[in-house]
Amino acid sequence: MRVALVGVGLIGGSIGLAARGRLGAHVVGCNRSPRALEIALQRGAIDEAVGSIAEIGTADVAIAGVAIDALPATVRALCEALPDAVVTDVGSTKAALVGGIERANFIGGHPLAGAEATGVAHAREDLFEGATWYLTPRDATPGVLYERLARFVAGLGAVPTAIAPDDHDRLMAVVSHLPHVVANLLVAQAAEALGGETLPATGPSFRDATRVAGSNPELWAQIYTANHAALGAQIDDLVRRLGEVRGLLDARIANDLAAWQDVAAQQRRALLEVGLGAAGVDVREVRAVVPNKPGVVAQIALALGRAGINISDMSLAPEADNRTGMIALWLSAADAERATGLIAELGYPAS
Amino acid sequence: MRVALVGVGLIGGSIGLAARGRLGAHVVGCNRSPRALEIALQRGAIDEAVGSIAEIGTADVAIAGVAIDALPATVRALCEALPDAVVTDVGSTKAALVGGIERANFIGGHPLAGAEATGVAHAREDLFEGATWYLTPRDATPGVLYERLARFVAGLGAVPTAIAPDDHDRLMAVVSHLPHVVANLLVAQAAEALGGETLPATGPSFRDATRVAGSNPELWAQIYTANHAALGAQIDDLVRRLGEVRGLLDARIANDLAAWQDVAAQQRRALLEVGLGAAGVDVREVRAVVPNKPGVVAQIALALGRAGINISDMSLAPEADNRTGMIALWLSAADAERATGLIAELGYPAS
Repeated sequence: MRVALVGVGLIGGSIGLAARGRLGAHVVGCNRSPRALEIALQRGAIDEAVGSIAEIGTADVAIAGVAIDALPATVRALCEALPDAVVTDVGSTKAALVGGIERANFIGGHPLAGAEATGVAHAREDLFEGATWYLTPRDATPGVLYERLARFVAGLGAVPTAIAPDDHDRLMAVVSHLPHVVANLLVAQAAEALGGETLPATGPSFRDATRVAGSNPELWAQIYTANHAALGAQIDDLVRRLGEVRGLLDARIANDLAAWQDVAAQQRRALLEVGLGAAGVDVREVRAVVPNKPGVVAQIALALGRAGINISDMSLAPEADNRTGMIALWLSAADAERATGLIAELGYPAS
Repeated sequence: MRVALVGVGLIGGSIGLAARGRLGAHVVGCNRSPRALEIALQRGAIDEAVGSIAEIGTADVAIAGVAIDALPATVRALCEALPDAVVTDVGSTKAALVGGIERANFIGGHPLAGAEATGVAHAREDLFEGATWYLTPRDATPGVLYERLARFVAGLGAVPTAIAPDDHDRLMAVVSHLPHVVANLLVAQAAEALGGETLPATGPSFRDATRVAGSNPELWAQIYTANHAALGAQIDDLVRRLGEVRGLLDARIANDLAAWQDVAAQQRRALLEVGLGAAGVDVREVRAVVPNKPGVVAQIALALGRAGINISDMSLAPEADNRTGMIALWLSAADAERATGLIAELGYPAS
């Protein structure tokens, strides 16, 4: 397998290390800074360095790991130069990018992995171990390309999860971007309220709540900008909710406040419990005969992703008539029945 | 020393354990639930149990460790029954309580210590080790009573810090109550946005930001109610700040967003660095001659508290003329010069 990496920073470099170490891939790297390419070669994150996308030649998988601003141009150049490759990116927001690029061989991606440190010097082969890796297939996405990319991502140690670009951006706005905004504001508010006073030796609650305040300003300015629509909507929603709490405070009815607090406890438990489990689960195979046409694999992957069902592995095989194909999915035994039902709902008999 | 504890829960029980273990005090306990008194006796948190405040007899220090709702009545009863004791409480908000009780022998208190678990069964002798313990002396507070209480609190392992009730409530609203409100809202928003979907295997940022969501509903309903004014003002301030961020997002000027993110990074560093240090510091004595009248000790303690200067220990001695007295304060060497200046500014020559 031949992998092309454009941008060998923390994420690109870690993809290179894992693709070489775990999948035995031949990795070609391309980067604006020759110094990063040198380090990537030294660290074994790439096999060879090239000066431009045109020099890559061919690839099975091509990944744009550049800054969000530079993604549209880089993805377009990769789709054009490598028509047989499945092209993906690793940007933190998806709707604007995916909406602007109508190429059949591009599938947006976003691994939920990272670290405080940036740059290829901090790349690690195990960076993606167990991490959710979002993929945004579309109706026009050929099933074989989605299969190739999902398998590649799973081979790096991650859990490929299909999601619609808008859902992705709304989800990230809620679980990541809004908490970053709020952390910044809590810090600013405390700094102003305290003036020159000492922060009291409190419990860890304030530290925890503001741990991500001020993370990597250049990166976050790009994330806020790219996801401004979904993040703006969540900010409006938070303002509305703060107004409701203001009402509860003004009324000062102890039972109502306690009930509100209690709902939050239940919601947090439900949210975090759901994310657990998974390791060492019993895997089942679900098979379905599907029409041999674009969009079907994306449709199935998205339906299962929405239901919180992880696909451990998948394989596609055309039937003899070449108009239908067999799709085999490996899922946890607990999810198998639900998945069979969901696939049947889409009109494909599954077993 | 004789200590009276009304309410032997986690905090009251821990005060009992520390007062007996570290100060050799005789501790008398009183509690609505006889079962809690039994456990307190078994665990060595109290020496004797009494059925009512009237049966306590005498005490040097009396602590109301009951629920916030029950504090005003309990504190008043203690001030009346034990006129020679310094009476204090351990409630999380101060302005409403302290404003409503005009007794010279009451000084409000709030140790910044606690745990997930409640009840005397979880009490620990070292619960207050290194914790900030706010005290709210007033103009009418006799210096000897403040000295006695500050020494008692320091003897339990805590760092007594004088603060005005309004400043205390504003500070707690910012560093504790508002982060709790926001954690609840982030969880509610995520629960709604996710619907039945799985929370993705994210980094720890969402977990960190929402760790305190839904903490102890009954206790927090009382805290929100007691501090509704200061917390309401901070909520309004957060809404205003969210509006500003909305403006930054709408404008999408990368430099402005990066600058905003960068300020948050600096503010967080400044806030958290300030709270460090302190252990094993070089201690100096600062002495001042002050008029022998109420309010002077409170005035000095508040001025130093506002400046972030911790008083490790203090002692008061009347001069021969009985109209003035000598106050000796032990502070870190780094703070000694600043403290001398601040005390001199109040009109008391210090050295």
